[in-house]
Amino acid sequence: MKKNIFYAQSGGVTPVINATAAGLIDGYKSKKTNFGKFYVGLNGIAGALNEELIDIKNEKVSELNKLKHTPGGAFGSCRIKLKDSHKNQEEFNRIAEVFKAHNIGYFFYNGGGDSQDTTLKLSSFFKKSNLDIKCIGLPKTIDNDLPITENCPGFGTVAKYIATSTYEASLDVKSMSNSSTKVFLLEVMGRHAGWIAAAAGVLKSSTNAFPHIILFPERVFNEKAFLKKVSDSVKKDAYCVVVTSEGIKYSNNEFVSAGTSRDSFGHAHLGGVAPKLSQMIQNKLKLKVHWAVSDYLQRASRHIGSSVDVKQAYEIGKKSINYAKNGITDVMVTIKKGKTKAYGWEIGYTNLKNVANKEKVMPNSFISKDGFGITNPCKKYILNLIKGEDYPPFKNGVPDYAQLELKTIKKKLKKFKV
Amino acid sequence: MKKNIFYAQSGGVTPVINATAAGLIDGYKSKKTNFGKFYVGLNGIAGALNEELIDIKNEKVSELNKLKHTPGGAFGSCRIKLKDSHKNQEEFNRIAEVFKAHNIGYFFYNGGGDSQDTTLKLSSFFKKSNLDIKCIGLPKTIDNDLPITENCPGFGTVAKYIATSTYEASLDVKSMSNSSTKVFLLEVMGRHAGWIAAAAGVLKSSTNAFPHIILFPERVFNEKAFLKKVSDSVKKDAYCVVVTSEGIKYSNNEFVSAGTSRDSFGHAHLGGVAPKLSQMIQNKLKLKVHWAVSDYLQRASRHIGSSVDVKQAYEIGKKSINYAKNGITDVMVTIKKGKTKAYGWEIGYTNLKNVANKEKVMPNSFISKDGFGITNPCKKYILNLIKGEDYPPFKNGVPDYAQLELKTIKKKLKKFKV
Repeated sequence: MKKNIFYAQSGGVTPVINATAAGLIDGYKSKKTNFGKFYVGLNGIAGALNEELIDIKNEKVSELNKLKHTPGGAFGSCRIKLKDSHKNQEEFNRIAEVFKAHNIGYFFYNGGGDSQDTTLKLSSFFKKSNLDIKCIGLPKTIDNDLPITENCPGFGTVAKYIATSTYEASLDVKSMSNSSTKVFLLEVMGRHAGWIAAAAGVLKSSTNAFPHIILFPERVFNEKAFLKKVSDSVKKDAYCVVVTSEGIKYSNNEFVSAGTSRDSFGHAHLGGVAPKLSQMIQNKLKLKVHWAVSDYLQRASRHIGSSVDVKQAYEIGKKSINYAKNGITDVMVTIKKGKTKAYGWEIGYTNLKNVANKEKVMPNSFISKDGFGITNPCKKYILNLIKGEDYPPFKNGVPDYAQLELKTIKKKLKKFKV
Repeated sequence: MKKNIFYAQSGGVTPVINATAAGLIDGYKSKKTNFGKFYVGLNGIAGALNEELIDIKNEKVSELNKLKHTPGGAFGSCRIKLKDSHKNQEEFNRIAEVFKAHNIGYFFYNGGGDSQDTTLKLSSFFKKSNLDIKCIGLPKTIDNDLPITENCPGFGTVAKYIATSTYEASLDVKSMSNSSTKVFLLEVMGRHAGWIAAAAGVLKSSTNAFPHIILFPERVFNEKAFLKKVSDSVKKDAYCVVVTSEGIKYSNNEFVSAGTSRDSFGHAHLGGVAPKLSQMIQNKLKLKVHWAVSDYLQRASRHIGSSVDVKQAYEIGKKSINYAKNGITDVMVTIKKGKTKAYGWEIGYTNLKNVANKEKVMPNSFISKDGFGITNPCKKYILNLIKGEDYPPFKNGVPDYAQLELKTIKKKLKKFKV
């Protein structure tokens, strides 16, 4: 009896994680003789723990075909980090039990650094338990912070969105600056790595002054230097555009977004770097500021997909079916630089040990000397990843995204109690 | 000697205000025998006060051709409201003097309610001063709050952006809700009218639960009812999506965004409704919240232009040249409902007196009974305005927007001192 596949989505989702699912499903369909059923865990690894499995043959093909252009995690994601198996025997046993009950021979886990760690732990446990389950990690993170892989699927589309949105908002504040707003601040994601903020830097050229300032978590935030740069930019260009990573910190390692102020009930004010910086500029420089926080809008921005990004995400899924068929296990699929001089890429893989729980921040050579911009090599790196427009189809004025049924199959085991 | 045109952009800009400029320029070019030169005021009416005029023949045709798809105000806008002429003789005299010096016979002012008021005041003053200058107001506002006109150019594109972005972020939070974020809040523009927030309402259907809550400035904000609705939505669907207008107020007429808290220097915390509501939900309901503030990103969102909106903005400019040629004055150009049963529209005009300084809020029939959603007639109204995708061309991964020189012509008068 052929072994079944178990796939799940994990961690913060991306605009193209479903493109990886689409590639995996298409790969499976083209190699169907090698595999049994294709199950997806509802809400990531929780689907394994709770024995909530979706058989993709129960989903409408027309909706599955939309996965390639649908943002979010179509099968539900999770923020569950498994503890080490010796501290957490119960959960590991349960997953093994569920996988045995459903004849799972292939485990594909689609996530970031934490999820690769989960995959590695499960793989070790399966081996110790004499279970033959191939374990393959599929990369995904808008933060672009996984090591080994040349870049991470999800980042290219978010980078394209941030560059485009910063361009547009810069034109807006520029046109208002003569008698109104002088500064525009955009807060983007990135707690430890400044890749997303860096994406706005591709706009700067001999004809564009913006963005005047990019703030990276890789650099200590210096209020004085920052305010001087804002003031200088407004003096020179009449306006100033700032793109800030959410995770910037002071030299004492405190987040700039961390509020010490309290409301009348004693509750701490919520973070948000953009309003904090805005307050700083208005108080100290007396300049009118507008600010935006892109949050999930950036992370789900599939309406302005990068063609390269969508292709890479899809191919990662498709290729990994081949790897599984060939018995490869304990790896994370990667994007490798092609051998040609122009930007080219191919799919490869690396041992899970090389990527689990590791984080790739921006190299020093990618951040400009003053710490407020990107260098040419960084610009080139990002421009390659935002090439081409992959638009979703629209229906009634809004994108036509997949709507899955997500009906789970009949359970074989008793309920799991955590 | 043929009279010259003076055009200027005013107030908060929109993603399609330059499409109106493009229509005007194209109209002028096709009727060139009737007019002299085509001047644009740099930074709105400030260009008239400071005698800073741009002759469009000095701009590259290739860049002018990009205006139709370029957001922001390409010629600079302004936030200047002229006082009544009897209180402000100096400014009115100066504008008349500049217009005489440059043989202006046509004044086109592209703005919202305040700008129509400026146009009306100037027109009256010109008449009193025996100056034959035709004055035509061109509508523009993402707020959709001008009366008489069926809708306002700029709104359709912003509505499309808000509906699309809310859709995408809803899929994101839905996929995270099982073990992480339960509520997503999006703050959109709209101080007095809830049109933009209403746009997200088109997503709700038999298959989509989101957005669960829309907050309108037209309805008093009731914290208790709001929190109950959030809690009920999370109980029912596992997650909740809220779209809020920036201008919502408590029953005591205080803005929800107005902070009473102070930082250590005694400075007031800046507004932002989304972080306020987020805090409320986290403190009272103990639910994990993500929030975004779209600010200029929405107002400049030309990368996802509504075809209807772009067409209307362009035709308003083009048609107004005909009106000017025919000697029509003291009007604002409008969009009228067509006579066919399907959605159709045509360009018309109304006397400036009917629109100056007036605001159209959402009618009661467009807001659902519980105050948290839109009705079917409202949905139909908005769906008509977000139809079709008008994408800008892209270059190197980002939109290829117009870059004008904005060189002003030689001055004929002395410097104006305000």
